[in-house]
Amino acid sequence: MITIRYKVTLAYDGTLFSGFERQPNRRTIEHLLTHPVNIMAKNPEPPIVVYGSGRTDAGVHALGQVVHFDFPFDLPSEAIYRGLNSLLPLDMEIKKAERVSDHFHARYDVSGKRYVYRLDLGEFKDPFKRNYTGNWRFPIDIDKVQAAMADFVGEHDFTSFVPSGSTARSNYRTIYEAKASLDKDANFISIFIQARLCFIDCP
Amino acid sequence: MITIRYKVTLAYDGTLFSGFERQPNRRTIEHLLTHPVNIMAKNPEPPIVVYGSGRTDAGVHALGQVVHFDFPFDLPSEAIYRGLNSLLPLDMEIKKAERVSDHFHARYDVSGKRYVYRLDLGEFKDPFKRNYTGNWRFPIDIDKVQAAMADFVGEHDFTSFVPSGSTARSNYRTIYEAKASLDKDANFISIFIQARLCFIDCP
Repeated sequence: MITIRYKVTLAYDGTLFSGFERQPNRRTIEHLLTHPVNIMAKNPEPPIVVYGSGRTDAGVHALGQVVHFDFPFDLPSEAIYRGLNSLLPLDMEIKKAERVSDHFHARYDVSGKRYVYRLDLGEFKDPFKRNYTGNWRFPIDIDKVQAAMADFVGEHDFTSFVPSGSTARSNYRTIYEAKASLDKDANFISIFIQARLCFIDCP
Repeated sequence: MITIRYKVTLAYDGTLFSGFERQPNRRTIEHLLTHPVNIMAKNPEPPIVVYGSGRTDAGVHALGQVVHFDFPFDLPSEAIYRGLNSLLPLDMEIKKAERVSDHFHARYDVSGKRYVYRLDLGEFKDPFKRNYTGNWRFPIDIDKVQAAMADFVGEHDFTSFVPSGSTARSNYRTIYEAKASLDKDANFISIFIQARLCFIDCP
């Protein structure tokens, strides 16, 4: 069967998800995305598999998670994203759908990932930030935080974080940007970490 | 028994609440606030009653809801708000606690209320805004919206919104500010309505 590969970029609020990866009897991104993709494809056998660029943990949000899947019909990209959005729950949203070549792979073609950590410095926990922001109500020296972030930059061995059975060729990853910034007006620290992965062209 | 009246200002994320007013087997602001107040007061009989300045509906948020209650111990205001915050769920937060005179009443001393409605104009529903913002993906003429808002300003008869058995002296309310503003960068409309209530000194 000839299939068309689609690359889809999505955002999700991870609060009510047990993470990306499918697990029995759990609400996961993978499950809730695979289901409407198969509905739109008229439930083929075997079912269409959705491949993600990575797997977020429970409670972790995504602003631009990339996935791909092979679809049995040649639909315009707009039909893919409008159709899926109409079937997805409100805490998931397709931001973009594109036709890609059959060589594209959401996981292996990742060139980098950006991680954002947010820390509110207010005395009390703002109920509107509780799912999206940590809280630290004690004194913090942003200059020291910024100085410490520099130590993250570079190539490091992350073997201790790798699950058994990993198929990665290397457990080394390069963090090429790590910085903390303080928004004084909002009393808020953001920490950005930009990492390059290494599945194929490892250094 | 001599009691001390405390005025407490709180914020809550109404998403997971069935509104302010206590209802059997429902998660309400009134219930979840009354419970820790009574725990801190060592569960007196009859229990302490918490009076709110108004009653938000299910799913409606508050940035500055005011309540009062009569407490059997003379505690510093800081002990009241720190104590309550330690006992409240994460979607409620006390922002301020003050000792007030026994003549203060959260409901009858309201001088005004500010209502905020937010409308995202993006094509798709942002999962991070879903609980806090409406969505309107069709063309909208902000000048017309702004012109229409002016009709809300003034004194109006709101009898048709009043539940049977209401104790209000008058069903007239004065809206003294109603405006819509467009944030072009964020593609977002905010509508503010400021109303003056009338329980005692009605015009």
